[in-house]
Amino acid sequence: MFDSVNRRNVLMSAGTAGVLSTLPSPALAGAPGIAAETAPAGFDPAPFAKQAVKFAVIGLDHYHIMGMTAAVQRGGGKLVKFYTTDPKQIADFRAKFGDIPLAKSEAEILGDKSIKLVCGAPIPDQRAPLGIRVMKAGKDYLSDKPAITTLEQLAEVRKTVAETKKKFAIMYSERLEVKAAIHAGYLIDQGAIGKVIQTVNLAPHRIGNVDAGGRPEWFWHKNRYGGILTDIGSHQIEQFLYYTKSTSAHVVASQAGNVAHPQYPEFEDFGDMVAVGNGGTGYIRVDWFTPDGLPTWGDGRLFVLGTEGYIELRKYYDVSGRAGGNHLFIADKKGVRYIDCNNVLLPFGPLFVRDILDRTEKAQDQAEALLTAELVLTAEKNATKPVIA
Amino acid sequence: MFDSVNRRNVLMSAGTAGVLSTLPSPALAGAPGIAAETAPAGFDPAPFAKQAVKFAVIGLDHYHIMGMTAAVQRGGGKLVKFYTTDPKQIADFRAKFGDIPLAKSEAEILGDKSIKLVCGAPIPDQRAPLGIRVMKAGKDYLSDKPAITTLEQLAEVRKTVAETKKKFAIMYSERLEVKAAIHAGYLIDQGAIGKVIQTVNLAPHRIGNVDAGGRPEWFWHKNRYGGILTDIGSHQIEQFLYYTKSTSAHVVASQAGNVAHPQYPEFEDFGDMVAVGNGGTGYIRVDWFTPDGLPTWGDGRLFVLGTEGYIELRKYYDVSGRAGGNHLFIADKKGVRYIDCNNVLLPFGPLFVRDILDRTEKAQDQAEALLTAELVLTAEKNATKPVIA
Repeated sequence: MFDSVNRRNVLMSAGTAGVLSTLPSPALAGAPGIAAETAPAGFDPAPFAKQAVKFAVIGLDHYHIMGMTAAVQRGGGKLVKFYTTDPKQIADFRAKFGDIPLAKSEAEILGDKSIKLVCGAPIPDQRAPLGIRVMKAGKDYLSDKPAITTLEQLAEVRKTVAETKKKFAIMYSERLEVKAAIHAGYLIDQGAIGKVIQTVNLAPHRIGNVDAGGRPEWFWHKNRYGGILTDIGSHQIEQFLYYTKSTSAHVVASQAGNVAHPQYPEFEDFGDMVAVGNGGTGYIRVDWFTPDGLPTWGDGRLFVLGTEGYIELRKYYDVSGRAGGNHLFIADKKGVRYIDCNNVLLPFGPLFVRDILDRTEKAQDQAEALLTAELVLTAEKNATKPVIA
Repeated sequence: MFDSVNRRNVLMSAGTAGVLSTLPSPALAGAPGIAAETAPAGFDPAPFAKQAVKFAVIGLDHYHIMGMTAAVQRGGGKLVKFYTTDPKQIADFRAKFGDIPLAKSEAEILGDKSIKLVCGAPIPDQRAPLGIRVMKAGKDYLSDKPAITTLEQLAEVRKTVAETKKKFAIMYSERLEVKAAIHAGYLIDQGAIGKVIQTVNLAPHRIGNVDAGGRPEWFWHKNRYGGILTDIGSHQIEQFLYYTKSTSAHVVASQAGNVAHPQYPEFEDFGDMVAVGNGGTGYIRVDWFTPDGLPTWGDGRLFVLGTEGYIELRKYYDVSGRAGGNHLFIADKKGVRYIDCNNVLLPFGPLFVRDILDRTEKAQDQAEALLTAELVLTAEKNATKPVIA
């Protein structure tokens, strides 16, 4: 619960400008006039404590691989090998995960029968081909998103999943690895806001100091990253499907374009889409316009509208001034309250390793993961260009 | 500025649930970790102090007429007559505006050459025909929104405006009469967030206790209220046009339907639309799903995304816990700050009366007001129905 004395001290020393970066780190749970509570863990890791599978990593072009590796380890994954040729990636990976053996080739990992899972984050257009090779080698695969950059790749992935009975999992981390998003799922499943009608995601991202070389060359080429709807938007379409419990859906309208980065003509800096499913509808905006003054990479929001209430997530930041992330606000029949979700335990890793052992789909539904890809690829293909004067 | 002692007292007596309605009314400007400031008035009423025009009111079916009347009075409007046949409307209007003479007929007002302006809020489908009669009688007209419920009405309005040179103004109160929305316009004009790329409006409304007769019969019939995009959505399309400075635009996609009120089959309780203009793009969601526990009629939000920052408005409520409305948050190149806009002065009334005297369009651009109607009517006509399982 809220500590009013500590908060008052913060306030009295805060001054009037530019204070965010100097705040103490404990989340300031409450705010004037709103009831506050703390979400429980929501997940019991005990039944998963003794499970183990050996896994390897191939492709570290996006450092999302660090979070993916850590998630699998939390579920009992034993990291036995990794493969990349980039010296900096090798050093950074070992700095985080210890002196893991470096394979001499991808083939060395694919040929190792003790390895049951490969996690991959190569350049986006290489992710699906890698996954297909992994599945054909008799292993499950967990890809960074976007895992699939063309509809042709998608068809080949679906064919290989059907033939090999292996998993092509996709780490949609903006739900699976965000505590507030996990807790929102629990609340919705409990009927806290009635029947879900719609989701709205606003998903700004920081492009960083591009003139200083902050992004690799492939970041600017659409045939490599797949376009903004395919890349960032896959996170949000997955949330739309998940929270509306839609098992079929289509994209009603989509836009994608470059409104303010003429020096990178293939780069898409803004996009949006409206999707409709058999469980609800969704709107998604994605962009690369996080302002320089925002103290985190993006003010990601999710609004879930239900027949009896709504939920708002401020996943990574609260523009109202609460420290940290994982902020959930709910308005329902009885009132309005704030829920600090930082104590929630992330279930993906434990459930995913269990799925590998049991051939179940509790961590991620295979059909949903690939429907997400289908929707964003179709949205990207049909997108109109917003022309900003 | 923020009063930490008072706020602490509030917090310590607040408990954990249902506290919002018992808060003291002064807005609690700050919050942990965010810089706070108060917006200035932004408008000098002095040059308008001596202006005067005589005006009348016809049609009180929506009590928006109360705010419209007050706005014109703030600009020097002298209310000389009103006309309705409903005894409750007559009593309520006089309770607010004094013992104003009741006309015996609409014709009495239209025939009074001293009256230069008629404000009207009859049932929506009657607003444009009334306005056409008013303009043909040589007077300007200010309508409640939606002012126009069919494309045929729109064509007739445009024709009559061109022929009579009179004004067909529409009170889009969710911008024109909201202090935070006015201040957002000033900030954008000053370049505070760079070039505007997109607006997002979330516009929930409370339907009220319908079983207790809280809404008149016309509220449920689409041919009378025009549909949810036409009715509520006109406010938001106007904001999209205004903040993106678009002078031409079209609706890319729209949805409208009845997802949770089967007892009123013609009622639309949910809608959304994506619009693109020559100055930017916009997304709008409108709905009648304000939760019972929310202490105000709707948590109306506006997000304006610019190339160098963004603005969020919480117009009528702050789910984070600040009291009152008119909350503005801005993230820009330098940081994030909260702006309390309650001291802003609303310019519409004074400017509109000046426009009547000078034949200018400073309070409202005639073309923009009617383009708004065209966009929502077209969106409504082409809307697909979201089917919620």
